[in-house]
Amino acid sequence: MATIVEVDDPADPRLADYRDLRDVELRKNLEAEHGLFLAEGEKVVRRAVEGGCTPRSFLMAPRWLDGLADVLDRSDAPCFVLSEALAEQVTGFHVHRGALASLERQPLPAVDEVLEGARSVLVLEDVVDHTNVGAIFRSGAALGFDAVLLAPRCADPLYRRSIKVAMGTVFSVPWTRLPDWHDALPSLSARGFTTVALTLAEDSSPIEDAVAGLDKVALVLGSEGHGLSPRWEQSADRRAIIPMAEGVDSLNVAAATAVACYVTARR
Amino acid sequence: MATIVEVDDPADPRLADYRDLRDVELRKNLEAEHGLFLAEGEKVVRRAVEGGCTPRSFLMAPRWLDGLADVLDRSDAPCFVLSEALAEQVTGFHVHRGALASLERQPLPAVDEVLEGARSVLVLEDVVDHTNVGAIFRSGAALGFDAVLLAPRCADPLYRRSIKVAMGTVFSVPWTRLPDWHDALPSLSARGFTTVALTLAEDSSPIEDAVAGLDKVALVLGSEGHGLSPRWEQSADRRAIIPMAEGVDSLNVAAATAVACYVTARR
Repeated sequence: MATIVEVDDPADPRLADYRDLRDVELRKNLEAEHGLFLAEGEKVVRRAVEGGCTPRSFLMAPRWLDGLADVLDRSDAPCFVLSEALAEQVTGFHVHRGALASLERQPLPAVDEVLEGARSVLVLEDVVDHTNVGAIFRSGAALGFDAVLLAPRCADPLYRRSIKVAMGTVFSVPWTRLPDWHDALPSLSARGFTTVALTLAEDSSPIEDAVAGLDKVALVLGSEGHGLSPRWEQSADRRAIIPMAEGVDSLNVAAATAVACYVTARR
Repeated sequence: MATIVEVDDPADPRLADYRDLRDVELRKNLEAEHGLFLAEGEKVVRRAVEGGCTPRSFLMAPRWLDGLADVLDRSDAPCFVLSEALAEQVTGFHVHRGALASLERQPLPAVDEVLEGARSVLVLEDVVDHTNVGAIFRSGAALGFDAVLLAPRCADPLYRRSIKVAMGTVFSVPWTRLPDWHDALPSLSARGFTTVALTLAEDSSPIEDAVAGLDKVALVLGSEGHGLSPRWEQSADRRAIIPMAEGVDSLNVAAATAVACYVTARR
């Protein structure tokens, strides 16, 4: 079981994984360089471990130990225990959900591995906001999607905020990065998927019609700002739109994904 | 037209409306006491004014003046112009979208006024997160809903973050607070609406069946944490569920709203 280590010095070097959690840029570098990511909250920490991730360490105030006892029992990593005030000094914010864990980043699986047996897949081009990436994973999981593929510039699903908004579904839904941006969609078509790009383009069909009767579907979504690149829009097999009221900005990408997943799941 | 007032002292008392924008609790009190709300960004400021709101003042760096020239032309309020560094000192954050406006809060309309001619209405019980309230307005507007009714504890649609996430649709979709929590849903039924509560309750029907063929529908959504209160769940005419994958947490309230609005709009 995990070794309980009581800490009373916020500068303790063993807490390095947990520093400055509010500084997104610093964390991106630190997490990439050290091959780690953070999970926050009892439910999410449990899901990470149950999803097969290996903890480097845990950090929590004493009152959270009981709730995670079963998880700690099954790990050899140290569990740093400190007061909530000290935890706040280390992390730079009040840890509402109590427990944190630092976990090892594994090499991402190959696209073919992620797609094995998948019938409904989400493909994100440049969704750069961690909240949106998390929300998309959660909706995809809830609505029965089997896998998520991310273009190279998408935000990191293992960033703390993504994981939290996803309610830990990033540990249960298989996902990986697409190695090649330019031919990403044709390579999915070659694997038997019909790629359906969600876009406001004039030649797009209502989403219900676009997915009707299809077997393997890859639903393709673009960035928050400007949607899909022309290359992805044009290299998709079909273009689809969610019919909307006149004169209103389009749905945001997380809402559009929820609707498109719902419709596609019932094709 | 608006009077341009150059400001070089961040402590200038005329900037009081714009102080400490990152402090949610302080802002709630200040905005309620002074009967104001803030809009951020050229697009949102324009929509607020075009939606009939009266500006108390504007605040922006010189480079945003041109883009809002038409809006400033039509207003008598002062426009405070200062450098971006000074603006950051006043507001407490970097104003990415440049322009801010402080606008007068009007008394909320009566429920009957908001419901006049409405066929599809959203009713929110205790959605306490400004981002969710904003996202729900945006989805409702995009998917053709006519009005939004808020229970007394819902987050404020005119809070800066709500407005921004809603893309200003809080100025175009009629909305108000429900004066009475306990009989809110029966009072809608009495007005000819079928109230359809979104819930995970065991006796709920799939949303598509629950709304099929209905004329006037009020779609009822609960809080992020624990969903609807027993009172609202039981006093709704129908209970509906979005069919989901086994073993996954439900959709978040903004995603669920988007799906439910889409389905209801096509009833």
